[in-house]
Amino acid sequence: MRNIKLTVEYDGRRYSGWQRLGDSDKTIQGKIETTIEKMTEEKVEIIGSGRTDAGAHSRGQVANFKTESTMSLLEMQDYLNYYLPKDIVIKEIEEVPERFHARYNAKEKQYSYYVWNHRVPSVFDHHHSYHYVEKLDLDRLNEACEKLVGTHDFLGFSSLKKSKKSTTRTIDSITVEEENGMLHFTFVGNGFLYNMVRIIMGTLLEIGDGTLEVSVIDDIFEQKVRRDAGKTVPAQALFLDSVTY
Amino acid sequence: MRNIKLTVEYDGRRYSGWQRLGDSDKTIQGKIETTIEKMTEEKVEIIGSGRTDAGAHSRGQVANFKTESTMSLLEMQDYLNYYLPKDIVIKEIEEVPERFHARYNAKEKQYSYYVWNHRVPSVFDHHHSYHYVEKLDLDRLNEACEKLVGTHDFLGFSSLKKSKKSTTRTIDSITVEEENGMLHFTFVGNGFLYNMVRIIMGTLLEIGDGTLEVSVIDDIFEQKVRRDAGKTVPAQALFLDSVTY
Repeated sequence: MRNIKLTVEYDGRRYSGWQRLGDSDKTIQGKIETTIEKMTEEKVEIIGSGRTDAGAHSRGQVANFKTESTMSLLEMQDYLNYYLPKDIVIKEIEEVPERFHARYNAKEKQYSYYVWNHRVPSVFDHHHSYHYVEKLDLDRLNEACEKLVGTHDFLGFSSLKKSKKSTTRTIDSITVEEENGMLHFTFVGNGFLYNMVRIIMGTLLEIGDGTLEVSVIDDIFEQKVRRDAGKTVPAQALFLDSVTY
Repeated sequence: MRNIKLTVEYDGRRYSGWQRLGDSDKTIQGKIETTIEKMTEEKVEIIGSGRTDAGAHSRGQVANFKTESTMSLLEMQDYLNYYLPKDIVIKEIEEVPERFHARYNAKEKQYSYYVWNHRVPSVFDHHHSYHYVEKLDLDRLNEACEKLVGTHDFLGFSSLKKSKKSTTRTIDSITVEEENGMLHFTFVGNGFLYNMVRIIMGTLLEIGDGTLEVSVIDDIFEQKVRRDAGKTVPAQALFLDSVTY
C-alpha cells in the first residue's frame, strides 16, 4: 500500500470547512476524496492534519491517503489539479512511509489572521481579511501577545463547553506586522482548540482599541470563562499556513 | 459648482468594464453614477480618465463629477463606500478646480499585468493573474521590453482596424519583476490604444517562451499588422494602477 502526502491550498469561501460531513459535497475533504476516488477507482479516506472552520483558508493544509494505484506522483498531482475546483489546489505531493499519519504526527501549526485597520474598505482583500475601523495600538497588542505565549489552559479562549481531554496548549509565538494598514498576525503552536485563534484575535482587537485591559488575559487564564474574552472574529480572515512534522 | 475628483479601486470580475453603456448596471461608471445620484439627488455624469476593459481591475482609476451638493468630502466618501458594492471602493476624494477634467488632463498612466508562471495553479491569485505554464526566459523578456520603450506607432499592437487619429504613443518604461513564480509587468506611458497592453503582453509571452523572436517587435512597428503579434491575453490579470495629472 502506498501512503501519499498532500499539501493543499484552498480558498474556503465556498465551503463549510475541511471535514467531510456525511455525503456533503460542500467540504474540502469531500471534494478531494471524490476526485481521488475517480482517479484511483478505489474507496479512499483522506486524513487531514485537523479541521479548518467553514470559510477559513489554507496555504499548507496537510493530508494523507493510502492507495494501490501505480500512477506517478506527477500524474496524480496534474490529474487532481485538473479535476478539482479552481479554489482547491494540490501544491505538493510526495510518497511517505506507511506509518505517516497527518493528524497524529503533526507537531506544530502556523496560522495567520489579517486585519484591515483602515477607515476605507479594501477591494482586493475583503474576502481574506477582517475590516476593523477602530484604531489599534500596536504596543498594547504586542504586550497582550506576549502574555498569551507559553503553556496555558486555553479553555476560556475556546468554544468548548467543557472538555474531558486536556485543554492545555503551548503557543510558541504570536507576532503582529503592519503594512499599509493591513495587520498580519501569525500564531505558531503545538495545537489549537476549537475557535481558539478566532477568540484570541477577538480579544486582542478589543485590547488593541482600548475596550479591554491587557490584564483580562490573566483573568481568562485563571477563571476560564469564555464570556470574559472578545468576540469570535470571522473565519474569512483566517489561514492555516503550514503544518510541521 | 463644485468639481469632485475620485480615486477608485475596483475588482472588475463582475463588470463589463468602466464605461457606462446605455442603462446597463453592469459597468463601474454606471454603479458609481447611480450611487452619486442617490446621494446628491442630482443628475450626474462622471468622467473617467479612460475606459478599462471588461474584467480588468483598478487600484487607481481617476474620475470627476460636478455637483451643487454641500456635503463634506468625508461624508460623501463614507456614503459612497457604504452604498457601493464591496468590489468598488472610493479610495480618495478631493475637491479640484472647476477646469479639472479626468480624461483631458491625464498625463501618464501606469498598468500592471500579472503572469503566474508555474506548473501548479495558484488558488489565491487565479482571479487576478494569467496562468502560463511554459517556462519564460527573463533575459529575452527584458530585451523585448527595451525594444518597446520609446515613441512608436503602436497600431500593430492594438485591436483598432484603422484609425484617423494618431496611433503613436510613448511608453516610458516596461519592467518585469519575478517573485516566487509570479511575474509582475509594469507599463508606464502617456496613453495606450485599445487592447494595447494585452496584445503587447501576449507578444512578450510568446517571445519569452521561444515561440517568437525578439525581432518580431521591429517587424510589427514597421508593418503595423496585428496578426504578427501575439494573442490578446485575458483582462483578469490587468490592473490600472494610477493616473498622473
